[in-house]
Amino acid sequence: MTEMLSALALAEAVRTGRLSPADIAERCADAIAAREDEIGAFAAIDLDALRVAGRAPGLTEGRLTGLPVGIKDIIDTVDFPTARGSAIYDGHRPAADAAIVRMVAHAGGLIAGKTATTEFAFLNPTVTRNPHHAGHTPGGSSSGSAAAVAAGMLPLAIGTQTGGSVIRPASFCGVAGYKPSYKLLPTIGVKAFSWSLDTVGLFAARVADLAFAAGAITGRDFDLRDAGQPPRLAFVTTARAEQATPDAHAALDQAARAAERHGAHVVGLQLPLEVEAADAAHNIIQSYEVALALADEYDRHRDRLSPVLRDYLEAARGVSPEHYDEARRTARRARHAAADAFADFDAVLTFSAAGEAPEGLTTTGSPIFNRLWTLLGAPCVNVAGLRGGKGLPVGVQVVGRFGRDKAALNIARFLERAIAAD
Amino acid sequence: MTEMLSALALAEAVRTGRLSPADIAERCADAIAAREDEIGAFAAIDLDALRVAGRAPGLTEGRLTGLPVGIKDIIDTVDFPTARGSAIYDGHRPAADAAIVRMVAHAGGLIAGKTATTEFAFLNPTVTRNPHHAGHTPGGSSSGSAAAVAAGMLPLAIGTQTGGSVIRPASFCGVAGYKPSYKLLPTIGVKAFSWSLDTVGLFAARVADLAFAAGAITGRDFDLRDAGQPPRLAFVTTARAEQATPDAHAALDQAARAAERHGAHVVGLQLPLEVEAADAAHNIIQSYEVALALADEYDRHRDRLSPVLRDYLEAARGVSPEHYDEARRTARRARHAAADAFADFDAVLTFSAAGEAPEGLTTTGSPIFNRLWTLLGAPCVNVAGLRGGKGLPVGVQVVGRFGRDKAALNIARFLERAIAAD
Repeated sequence: MTEMLSALALAEAVRTGRLSPADIAERCADAIAAREDEIGAFAAIDLDALRVAGRAPGLTEGRLTGLPVGIKDIIDTVDFPTARGSAIYDGHRPAADAAIVRMVAHAGGLIAGKTATTEFAFLNPTVTRNPHHAGHTPGGSSSGSAAAVAAGMLPLAIGTQTGGSVIRPASFCGVAGYKPSYKLLPTIGVKAFSWSLDTVGLFAARVADLAFAAGAITGRDFDLRDAGQPPRLAFVTTARAEQATPDAHAALDQAARAAERHGAHVVGLQLPLEVEAADAAHNIIQSYEVALALADEYDRHRDRLSPVLRDYLEAARGVSPEHYDEARRTARRARHAAADAFADFDAVLTFSAAGEAPEGLTTTGSPIFNRLWTLLGAPCVNVAGLRGGKGLPVGVQVVGRFGRDKAALNIARFLERAIAAD
Repeated sequence: MTEMLSALALAEAVRTGRLSPADIAERCADAIAAREDEIGAFAAIDLDALRVAGRAPGLTEGRLTGLPVGIKDIIDTVDFPTARGSAIYDGHRPAADAAIVRMVAHAGGLIAGKTATTEFAFLNPTVTRNPHHAGHTPGGSSSGSAAAVAAGMLPLAIGTQTGGSVIRPASFCGVAGYKPSYKLLPTIGVKAFSWSLDTVGLFAARVADLAFAAGAITGRDFDLRDAGQPPRLAFVTTARAEQATPDAHAALDQAARAAERHGAHVVGLQLPLEVEAADAAHNIIQSYEVALALADEYDRHRDRLSPVLRDYLEAARGVSPEHYDEARRTARRARHAAADAFADFDAVLTFSAAGEAPEGLTTTGSPIFNRLWTLLGAPCVNVAGLRGGKGLPVGVQVVGRFGRDKAALNIARFLERAIAAD
């Protein structure tokens, strides 16, 4: 494995004059040249253009100091084609950058290239391979974003999550991943799948890098210097616990013990039935909305959809508005019930994924340990550092309170340090 | 004035065999040919194609039975260019239809053409003229949609509202206009201005036509056959009452008296301070979001923006995330306070606009009597039938409870009938 690039450390090196943006662009371009043939993290990349862009004047003025950033290929960019993981959009050139792309640029980030996505961020896999073992999936749908950071090709990458598309690949690739509170980052210019769920997120080497990038991009306070008290954590395995592998259980237990040894108060918590019920509502909401969001592609280009997506869209058309409304009410009740259940805790500690990355590239794994938290709109952070029986990464997930993203990242960093010190 | 086309009556005529979809397409094409030079309702229209489309087989199968529908030009269409009222997008051809366009097509509507919009649905006027008096504005931003229905060119048109862009032009043009509950109709493929506020809406000749179209397009129950009890109405003039003209006050009073004569219970209600406070939050939320939604256009094409939009975007960049969050909290508190304040009422009766359509085409009028209701996410209906001192239409607005759109339309129809019977 190549060493990962810390966004925070690189920006600090630029600020103190030890590195220039051009040095960093070179380093990224070299890493991509060395490993991209094996990994396949990019849907569009131009290494010469990246090197040239790193020499542009003024890059050190923004907080991101010219750090190269990968953009998931369902996100519109003017300077790169945006194929959305679909033959329908092969070579498609959007007329405008997505809002998040402009935010990255305003913060001083270099738009390095487009990272591979599953088809429309659904389940049909990309060619991307897991940097920890090329025979395994990197997870999806933000496959290329997670892999590019894990392989040391980029210090930062943008992804999206509708089910588990940030936290799962971050877990499989052993990187820090952050799905913000719903709508913290704008989805304007991101190909929609399910507008009640689609959330723009970030990948970086470690939690401190995520917080640095989130602060730079949003202009919000994500300063983690004050770590605060050791957290009170609700240890949650959910009604789907038996679908987690022994590796996943072992990692979660190990994370909990590490947190306790560092002063955290960890209490096992069974989710209220009203919260568990929302897990099934996710698919109903997603189905109803994607049938509308991808109606044009289904109507005009059905033959160029993957069978898995075509079948899903066919079934999705059968979800009635009444069924959808009922699912939304279930979700609303679950948000209230979760707020009550977690009132005495700072965050939830739970699985990031069902285990290590599955072998092969025919599946990107399952979002069963992510859907509920996406539906609740809560900030989620994957904490890396643990490994499973095959030696592949197994992340654990910190879920914070809606709108309290900085606190969630602070707890994730606490946990990351506790695991590393163990 | 040409007579307006009733969607409900035309669909009934097709179902009973008195008219064919081709007859209706012909009638619309003839009306457009006769009046479009004067009105300027369309951004893109092809009358020959419309006539041909009306002869396609199978049109009578959908509930809309081949009725021609106008689509506001900030909404993506494959078959027509989508210029968004901006020189930046002159001749722009989207790769996919917006979700609402596919919904209209699935319901059996003919996509007739693109209706003129102000620049990105903001304030810079179109060339569209008011069908009731060509020297007056039709209102904005859904100028062409309102004018096309008012001029008898189309039985139905799709618009959007972020401030007052459905209800205001409906009021000025004397047509029925419906801004649904927030997110009832999907905004996927609609050029975003402010994602917390942008709402897709409908224009038609009368309220029964709106309900018919809403039911056909969404597959939801909008059946108004059971009128129910005469409503309990909260008569609300808001803290901005003195900015309404005597015409607007007279129309609102007249509507209230007509409702009372038909059995409604009408009670004057002062809005709670927490609700009034949300009016100022609208602009903060809109500013913060549009600075991101139109970031690319501002960054790359500033010289092709109108001065009014450019200045607005410049100021909008100064709204901090903290200021935005505070405005969102204000909006949330207002939604709860409004639910309490209106608990004893079926709907609010209030101004649709400040008065008759202003003279000239330099302004599309003010959204000051619409912003608050858009921010609350409540269903709003413009009820036409009254006129001001210059003989131009003055609408009144029915505001229902969030998610109770059918009830709001039912009350609007009650009021429309009461006004007509007066």
